[in-house]
Amino acid sequence: MTRWKLTIEYDGTHFCGWQRQDGDPSVQQTLEEAIEKFSGEKVILHVAGRTDSGVHARAQVAHFDLNKETEGDVIRGALNFFVRPNKVAVLKVEKVDETFHARFGALGRSYRYRIINRRAPLAILADFAWHIPKPLNVAAMQAAADILIGHHDFSTFRALNCQANSPMRTMEKLAFTQDDDEIILHVEARSFLYHQVRNIAGTLVLVGTGRWTLDDFKTAFAACDRTKGGPTAPPHGLCFWSVRYSSDT
Amino acid sequence: MTRWKLTIEYDGTHFCGWQRQDGDPSVQQTLEEAIEKFSGEKVILHVAGRTDSGVHARAQVAHFDLNKETEGDVIRGALNFFVRPNKVAVLKVEKVDETFHARFGALGRSYRYRIINRRAPLAILADFAWHIPKPLNVAAMQAAADILIGHHDFSTFRALNCQANSPMRTMEKLAFTQDDDEIILHVEARSFLYHQVRNIAGTLVLVGTGRWTLDDFKTAFAACDRTKGGPTAPPHGLCFWSVRYSSDT
Repeated sequence: MTRWKLTIEYDGTHFCGWQRQDGDPSVQQTLEEAIEKFSGEKVILHVAGRTDSGVHARAQVAHFDLNKETEGDVIRGALNFFVRPNKVAVLKVEKVDETFHARFGALGRSYRYRIINRRAPLAILADFAWHIPKPLNVAAMQAAADILIGHHDFSTFRALNCQANSPMRTMEKLAFTQDDDEIILHVEARSFLYHQVRNIAGTLVLVGTGRWTLDDFKTAFAACDRTKGGPTAPPHGLCFWSVRYSSDT
Repeated sequence: MTRWKLTIEYDGTHFCGWQRQDGDPSVQQTLEEAIEKFSGEKVILHVAGRTDSGVHARAQVAHFDLNKETEGDVIRGALNFFVRPNKVAVLKVEKVDETFHARFGALGRSYRYRIINRRAPLAILADFAWHIPKPLNVAAMQAAADILIGHHDFSTFRALNCQANSPMRTMEKLAFTQDDDEIILHVEARSFLYHQVRNIAGTLVLVGTGRWTLDDFKTAFAACDRTKGGPTAPPHGLCFWSVRYSSDT
C-alpha cells in the first residue's frame, strides 16, 4: 500500500464542486473513477480544500492509498488520460509517507478572489472573475480587510450551514493587488470556515463601492452574526491557490 | 455623421475570426449586427488587426460612421446588450475625428503569445495557451528572437497566402517573460504579415526544445523562404493586446 499526493488544477465551472452530489459530476468523482479505471481499485480521495460549484483550483492537493505498485509519472499520465474530457488536470503525483494527510496535515491554505472592475461585461474572464461595474475604492477595501488579520471570531462571515466546531480562525493574509481593471484579493490562513472567503469578499465590496463605511464593517464584524454581514461573493471569482505542509521544503 | 472608435475584447474560441466567413459567426458580423439593431443603420467596421479563428483580443480597435446622434456610453451599453450571448465586449466607445482610421492610422500593434510549459494538460487555460510538454529553454528562444529585432525581410515567417505588398517589416519588440510554467512572448511592430507572430512563435519553440540551434534559426531567417521556417503556432495562444495611434495621449 502506497500513499500518493496529487496536485490538481481544475476549472470549476461545469463541476458541482469537489464533493459528490446529484447533478453535474464532481471533481472527486471524476478523479476517483479515473483512478479505478487505471488501477481497478476503488479509492477515497482526501482533499485539502473542498470547493463549491464554480470555484476553481490552481494547485489543490488530495491523497489516496493504492495497492498497485507503480510510479508517480505513470499515475499522472493515466489520470490525465481517464479524466478527459472533464476540465481537471493532475499536475504532480508524489509518493508520500503514510502520515501525510491532505486535509488534516495542511499548515496553510491560500485562495485568490478575482474581480474585474469596469463598466463593460467580461468576454474573456466571465467564468473566472466577479464583474463589478461600479468603481471600487481598493484602499478602503484594504483598510477593512486589515481589521480581519489575526485570531478572531468569524461568525459574521461563516455560512449558516458551516459544520466547523468553532467560529475562531486566524487570518494570516488579506491583501489586495490591482493591475488595470483587475483586482485580486490574496487570502491565507491555516483553515477557513465554510464560505468564509466569499463572504469576506462580498462584504469588502460593500466598503469598496462606498455603501458601507469602515465603521459599518467593524460593527458587522464585531456582531459575530452572519445576518449582519454582506452578501456571499459569486463562486466563479474564487480560486483555491495552494496548500502548505510541514513536509514541504 | 459621427466617427466612433471602439475598443473591443473577445474570446476568439467560438468565432471564425474577425472577418465574415462561412460557418461560425465572426466578430465583425456580431458587432455590425448589434450596431444595426441599435441604430437601424448598416455600417462597416474597420479594424486594426484582423484575427483568425481562435485568436483572442484584449483591446482590439475598430471604427465606424453613424448618422444617428447619440453618446458613447449609450452605444457601449446597447452593443454589449445586443452582442449577447457571444463572447465579445465593447470596453470603450470614443467620438473621433473623421481622419481617424483604426487600420491605416495605427502606429503600433502589440500581441502576446502565451505558452504553458509543463507535462500535465491544461484544465484552466486550454483555450488561451499553447501547451508544450517538453521543457523549453527560454534564454535560447530569447537569443533567437533578438535576431528578428529591426527592419528585415520576414518571408520565412509570412503565410503563403499573405496579401501584403512587401515582406519587409520592422520588429520593435520580441521579449519573453516567464512566471512559473507560463511563458509569454510580447511582440510589437507597426504592422505584421499574415501569420507572422504565430510563425515566429512556432519557430522559436523549435529552438526552445533544442531541435534547432541558433544557427539553424539564423539560416532559416536569412533564407527568406516560408518553407525553411518552423510550424505555425496554434491560434489559441495568441492574443491581440493593443494598438497605438498618434491621437493617443
